[in-house]
Amino acid sequence: MPYRAPVNEFQFIFDHIVGLQSVTATERFEDATTDVVAAILTEAGKLSDEVLAPVNRAGDLEHTRLENGVMRSPTGFAEAYKGIAEGGWVGIAARPESGGMGLPMTVASAVNDMMGAACLSLQLVPLLSMGQIEALEHHASDAIKDLYLPKLTSGEWSGTMNLSEPQAGSDVGALATKAERNDDGTYSITGQKIWISWGDTDFSENICHLVLARLPDGPKGTKGISLFMVPKYIPDEDGNPGERNDLKVVSIEHKMGLHGSPTCVMEYSSAKGWLVGHEHGGMAAMFTMMNNARLGVGVQGVSAAEGAYQHALAYAMERKQGRTPVEGAGAIIDHADVRRMLAGAKADIFAARCISLACAAAIDMGTATGDAAWQARAAFLTPICKAFGTETGMRVSETGVQVYGGMGFVEETGAAQYYRDVRVTAIYEGTNGIQAMDLVARKLMDGGDAAYALLDEIEALAEQARASLPDLAEPVWQATETLREATEWMVGQGDLNERFAGAVPFLMGFARVLGGYYHLRAAMTEGGQGRRSRLAQFYIHRLLPEHKGHLVHARQGAADLYAITHEDLETA
Amino acid sequence: MPYRAPVNEFQFIFDHIVGLQSVTATERFEDATTDVVAAILTEAGKLSDEVLAPVNRAGDLEHTRLENGVMRSPTGFAEAYKGIAEGGWVGIAARPESGGMGLPMTVASAVNDMMGAACLSLQLVPLLSMGQIEALEHHASDAIKDLYLPKLTSGEWSGTMNLSEPQAGSDVGALATKAERNDDGTYSITGQKIWISWGDTDFSENICHLVLARLPDGPKGTKGISLFMVPKYIPDEDGNPGERNDLKVVSIEHKMGLHGSPTCVMEYSSAKGWLVGHEHGGMAAMFTMMNNARLGVGVQGVSAAEGAYQHALAYAMERKQGRTPVEGAGAIIDHADVRRMLAGAKADIFAARCISLACAAAIDMGTATGDAAWQARAAFLTPICKAFGTETGMRVSETGVQVYGGMGFVEETGAAQYYRDVRVTAIYEGTNGIQAMDLVARKLMDGGDAAYALLDEIEALAEQARASLPDLAEPVWQATETLREATEWMVGQGDLNERFAGAVPFLMGFARVLGGYYHLRAAMTEGGQGRRSRLAQFYIHRLLPEHKGHLVHARQGAADLYAITHEDLETA
Repeated sequence: MPYRAPVNEFQFIFDHIVGLQSVTATERFEDATTDVVAAILTEAGKLSDEVLAPVNRAGDLEHTRLENGVMRSPTGFAEAYKGIAEGGWVGIAARPESGGMGLPMTVASAVNDMMGAACLSLQLVPLLSMGQIEALEHHASDAIKDLYLPKLTSGEWSGTMNLSEPQAGSDVGALATKAERNDDGTYSITGQKIWISWGDTDFSENICHLVLARLPDGPKGTKGISLFMVPKYIPDEDGNPGERNDLKVVSIEHKMGLHGSPTCVMEYSSAKGWLVGHEHGGMAAMFTMMNNARLGVGVQGVSAAEGAYQHALAYAMERKQGRTPVEGAGAIIDHADVRRMLAGAKADIFAARCISLACAAAIDMGTATGDAAWQARAAFLTPICKAFGTETGMRVSETGVQVYGGMGFVEETGAAQYYRDVRVTAIYEGTNGIQAMDLVARKLMDGGDAAYALLDEIEALAEQARASLPDLAEPVWQATETLREATEWMVGQGDLNERFAGAVPFLMGFARVLGGYYHLRAAMTEGGQGRRSRLAQFYIHRLLPEHKGHLVHARQGAADLYAITHEDLETA
Repeated sequence: MPYRAPVNEFQFIFDHIVGLQSVTATERFEDATTDVVAAILTEAGKLSDEVLAPVNRAGDLEHTRLENGVMRSPTGFAEAYKGIAEGGWVGIAARPESGGMGLPMTVASAVNDMMGAACLSLQLVPLLSMGQIEALEHHASDAIKDLYLPKLTSGEWSGTMNLSEPQAGSDVGALATKAERNDDGTYSITGQKIWISWGDTDFSENICHLVLARLPDGPKGTKGISLFMVPKYIPDEDGNPGERNDLKVVSIEHKMGLHGSPTCVMEYSSAKGWLVGHEHGGMAAMFTMMNNARLGVGVQGVSAAEGAYQHALAYAMERKQGRTPVEGAGAIIDHADVRRMLAGAKADIFAARCISLACAAAIDMGTATGDAAWQARAAFLTPICKAFGTETGMRVSETGVQVYGGMGFVEETGAAQYYRDVRVTAIYEGTNGIQAMDLVARKLMDGGDAAYALLDEIEALAEQARASLPDLAEPVWQATETLREATEWMVGQGDLNERFAGAVPFLMGFARVLGGYYHLRAAMTEGGQGRRSRLAQFYIHRLLPEHKGHLVHARQGAADLYAITHEDLETA
């Protein structure tokens, strides 16, 4: 089932929802002219459709395997990666001085969305490199930048991030990997890291590992962590891969999905590393990479949803079964329940995609203008993008399997692959629970300013539409008021655990209302008449009402949770 | 991770929620004394814990395979099946004259719940035989009953149901398998059937296929379908497996999960069959089997949820990560979000299990008393049990993976197996969409009488509890009123497609309210003080509010759905 990149959808969202024109009006992004953006979308779409989508199935069936210590990728992966690298797509958002295109993150996110829908497991390679590039641009010394950035942006080398250890997963501060100072200014890194996506490849010339480790005098917790560049091959004087470093892939995980992407256990045995940023200041650089990756993973969720949706839609248009209430072909798409499933999937994809691109646009505005309000907007939207994007990926791929019926449970159709592959996106880069805790704690530390600014914006739009589109504007306005009350409740809780007890429902409720906002905005571009308005009707009348249940749940506090004892949970 | 059958939970639900005492007070079920029921639960629990659970993983890893036309089950399956058969568990609900125990379906469902949680793929064998036994008891000739029932109830032979064909899935009436009359009163069956679970085994001596086929003079659609018993080996004069019949397993599907259970393509080539019921009257018998199986599959969903829950709970109690707000061990169970996930899972399992056992109890009362009101109650609850039970299986197994974090995506922990295995339960035996359509069409054909009787019952209980437990009773009463309005809306729609457009949300909303009812009832048994009350608080305050979103969605009608065109759904 071929994938067709939804190029026009991105263009619409750029122009009418997230205001890419404001981004490209800045000096920083002035090169991203209308023509350039249109060409980028078209070319990335072509790459996704013609080069990446065709290798997706092989990734699932063949797995990337570790054979006698050598990584072997599935048929076609090396060639497809070459397509990504040679197109310059790894460096799309990297600065020109790094060898990149210097385009906005908004545009890069659309490209990632297309590439991810086509082949999620391979798209992870450039996604990780992009995060590494951004971290190096912000935190590395000039020497490291000069050496690594051109190779990373060209895709010749690829990047990884090494945080987790067996005892240090969500709690990064518990990590035990050691760094010791060498006489020559380099460091020796020793320890084991887990969950390292693409810890090795057979198509990039060097693997650049960014590794979190603790110096002997590093304090406990996250404040004692430093970040190091630890390449597989130590660059020689000419900057080419030289001596083999003392690191290796010990094993790869046997996973439910995303088989094309090897998840590695890495072993560092006095491997040579170079400090990135300051000693004991590793978390700052890692946060740059993690925030980038959280947006990226949210986009992965959306992309998997798009892939699953297109796949299920094609089947529903063709599969005939039973009598439908509509004259004509009588395909299952014309059964009310199938149409409800597919319209719901499309409406949710639009919502989740707008959230991810609004987050990216806020990042771009923050970068270009240095405006704290934009930076706060970006920070606020990042966990929502990550968690709601990946939740949408799970829900839509589940729907995709359901539309296929029994055929969905059979692997040959490919519906199951989307369902299995996307499952990890709700876990990696910080589980969705961690995202929600970040939202209600750190992202409300401003007393709710960033949240309220967003709510004000939504209500202003709803006011504007009230006269012309009352049946869309009114529910959005009401929902925003309910969300405002829930936000005020959250901000009012001094004990963070009171917030955590409702963090995930709060995030889901917030996302539902944001979805209403973007659908309303889309409908307004058509004056309420047209395909986007019909989808907005569906979303606002059928899906938006879910926010109420979420937000009631969000405000329950922790008391009832902790009244339930371990024994209560165990006893049958 | 060992499974422990929640024996006490079933006993509680029997005694305090679904009124098993009314069932066992009937003449039909008078042998099911308190002692017998307690012994049955204990023994079935032991079988599940000690015999079935240990083979679950092998089922996933080894698959049941077809080798040169011979079915090979995973290590331990044959021995475990022997345990099921020799314990008499296949015949638990079969009549004594069939060789069964004659126990209520309520008790049989609890046994199925335990066996399914332990090993879903193997439990499917007795489940299918149970459905076949019931169909034969109701519709077969004495000759067939005498020959097959003792062998089926003893588990020596196993049963299958053959409905689907490539062009006839949800639309059974489109089937093309041919039946021709032979001179000796038998029939010749020719055609291909798909989705045949356990179409062959290497541990039952004979396979009894109940096959839907059309006689040459059978009218089109479901009214021209007849049902046939088509055994793998034709019984000889002594009733032992004799000559090989002309049928075979052509291939088995490569599925996302439930690998232990082979899903077969069956080929019948003038295979010898015996009519069950009347010519052209096959659907009546098949409905007996399907209704039995729908209850059974709903129970499978609950059982998979229970298995996944216990598995995740054990991990959460042991895994340490980060600082928890509770003094003591500091396992992740004490993080608010993890506790929210697990408490939600437990609360939903209780709700779904009560629905399934209330459905079974209604079946029993209908059987024992012949009372049309009980039969209507059973018919009404069946699709809710099937769809909500399997939905709960999907949601809880998803939560199980999430609690495990990265380890949940790795196959070794087993969390992923629950997630993959249970996925099919929302599809087979009529997709959940089909269940919901059945609910809003056929099950409301009485003008809503069965639904309103249930709502009256809930409101009467809520009234009773209003004074003593206002914070539980009031929300349940309010939710029931909202559900009543939605039900009235449904009943008021003359065009069934108006109902279908909101069928799934209506079913989900109905299930949510039923869950509130059963939780309230449980809390009342403790006077609102105790572990069941704490769980009821959680459910009623955090999960019950979801009914509103569902029921608003349910009442949207079909117009907005059909306003969305094929092009709208296709266009990007």
